[in-house]
Amino acid sequence: MAVYTKVSAEEIGRFLTRFDVGTLVSAKGIAEGVENSNYLLETTQDRFILTLYEKRVDPVDLPFFIAMLDHLAAQGCLVPPMIADRDGEKVQKLCGRSACLIKFLPGVSVSHPTTAQARATGHALGDMHKALADFRPERRNILDHDGWRSLAEQCGPAQLDQIAPGLAEAIVRELDHLDQYWPNALPRSAIHADLFPDNVLMLGDRVTGLIDFYFSCTDIRAYDLAVTHAAWCFSDDGTDFHDAVSRALIAGYVSAFALSDAERQALPLLARGAALRFLLTRAYDWINTPADALVTRKDPQAFLERLQYYQTHPDIFKP
Amino acid sequence: MAVYTKVSAEEIGRFLTRFDVGTLVSAKGIAEGVENSNYLLETTQDRFILTLYEKRVDPVDLPFFIAMLDHLAAQGCLVPPMIADRDGEKVQKLCGRSACLIKFLPGVSVSHPTTAQARATGHALGDMHKALADFRPERRNILDHDGWRSLAEQCGPAQLDQIAPGLAEAIVRELDHLDQYWPNALPRSAIHADLFPDNVLMLGDRVTGLIDFYFSCTDIRAYDLAVTHAAWCFSDDGTDFHDAVSRALIAGYVSAFALSDAERQALPLLARGAALRFLLTRAYDWINTPADALVTRKDPQAFLERLQYYQTHPDIFKP
Repeated sequence: MAVYTKVSAEEIGRFLTRFDVGTLVSAKGIAEGVENSNYLLETTQDRFILTLYEKRVDPVDLPFFIAMLDHLAAQGCLVPPMIADRDGEKVQKLCGRSACLIKFLPGVSVSHPTTAQARATGHALGDMHKALADFRPERRNILDHDGWRSLAEQCGPAQLDQIAPGLAEAIVRELDHLDQYWPNALPRSAIHADLFPDNVLMLGDRVTGLIDFYFSCTDIRAYDLAVTHAAWCFSDDGTDFHDAVSRALIAGYVSAFALSDAERQALPLLARGAALRFLLTRAYDWINTPADALVTRKDPQAFLERLQYYQTHPDIFKP
Repeated sequence: MAVYTKVSAEEIGRFLTRFDVGTLVSAKGIAEGVENSNYLLETTQDRFILTLYEKRVDPVDLPFFIAMLDHLAAQGCLVPPMIADRDGEKVQKLCGRSACLIKFLPGVSVSHPTTAQARATGHALGDMHKALADFRPERRNILDHDGWRSLAEQCGPAQLDQIAPGLAEAIVRELDHLDQYWPNALPRSAIHADLFPDNVLMLGDRVTGLIDFYFSCTDIRAYDLAVTHAAWCFSDDGTDFHDAVSRALIAGYVSAFALSDAERQALPLLARGAALRFLLTRAYDWINTPADALVTRKDPQAFLERLQYYQTHPDIFKP
């Protein structure tokens, strides 16, 4: 959540000459998204986001993200596609990094979603899944169920237990349970995989954009709904479950795209998986990030709370 | 250069209801200015900067800054005044901090000023001084000549010598010289006192805004030109002096506001003072900021280079 690479106004001005987008009027470094450097640009024609990809996004993955965004935009989904330069290129080089000029979308990210906002988000997620039904490119989810045990081992049991006593063993028990019952046979699709409120732009109760597709990948489609559920339906610290928000999110999804009985039945397990995925990555970052680093560490405890809630309340997904 | 206080979109939306500025359409935390938290807002009517004042700006000083900006804006200078709410208030409270809604100005900050850009900036600075001739409020410059010796003592000689061998003694010698010759009799005025290229918005060769008035104060007027000179007329690391930029800056200033003979003759000394002021504050920050802190440390060496250049080249200010 910082600007890692400083790009001068002169460099941005020259960069824009590759495109038919007018000339630079304003450029502000913005604190947004995963670990990329982002600038909000205004030109004589329009506004744009300029993103320079830092270490967390592998340039090899950019064609998949671009294809997915193009596909979604072509189907009328409100996503921010990359802008092509005069030669049709969408991936540029700037200050030694891969860089894209991206459509700016209006809207703000809510911090305390209402039921109406959760319903609209569920609907937008369902619309996205509908639009992706005929999208063929694939990208492996490097944070999928198969990788969680190794991620837990990389954290180390002693370090996990420092986050919460008994955490290492609780994670192993959960991994055993998920390995036994993980619904691998469910339909797979391209998914967003990180649809936190930060990544949904809204005006009032209306979704104006789904953004930050840099974790998007191919995985169990209903897992995307489970991730969104874990991200939207609890207080920040995970200690309060918001039942009305949960029901609205799922009702919104179903109003756009059908959930099969098998998917609906798997939601409790998928939600446990989603909570564990964010518990593990946050624990890993917590253990490996100095407390005073530029990147804000997010407390893993908030997703341990969610995991425990999902373990003990499978009925919350019943219609 | 980061967002220190996270304000939710809901809070910003409520905050804006105090004003007649439309409703929120977009809010992006921006990495800009001194240690405040800044958001670039778009509403249904216009764009604004929302600033929350962190520790470096004392709320007691806000009325002076506001009066100075209002005065300059009323005289047609391109500065960003604070917006009054429906009750006429310009200083608000938000998230426990003093906060102001501020006019957004177009333009970008250049990193490698051309002579034309330096000329335009000198002219804008002269215009500003002209407009301030009848501005009466005063604010002491807490970083003025009188405070430099104490600042050097707070750094400590051993720590200064770690930055550059012999630096402590060189600073004492310079302080002795400045104490003997400092031109206290020169005209005083409200000044910007920090007009680095970062704080000048431009479109091409045209100045579209002078911003970031949070060091503005009452001091020797020509000292403001000296600060601007030290900020604009060298390579970033201070090792290259740009003579054409220097001449253009001063010529631009003089085209808007007269320099007396006494002011012109004092410029070499004022520039040494300006270089020392930034050398000392950067040295202080360097010594007191951990290398991996959120705030980027700026290298004091770049202003030691400038100081040495000014010491050995007094003739650069001759017409």
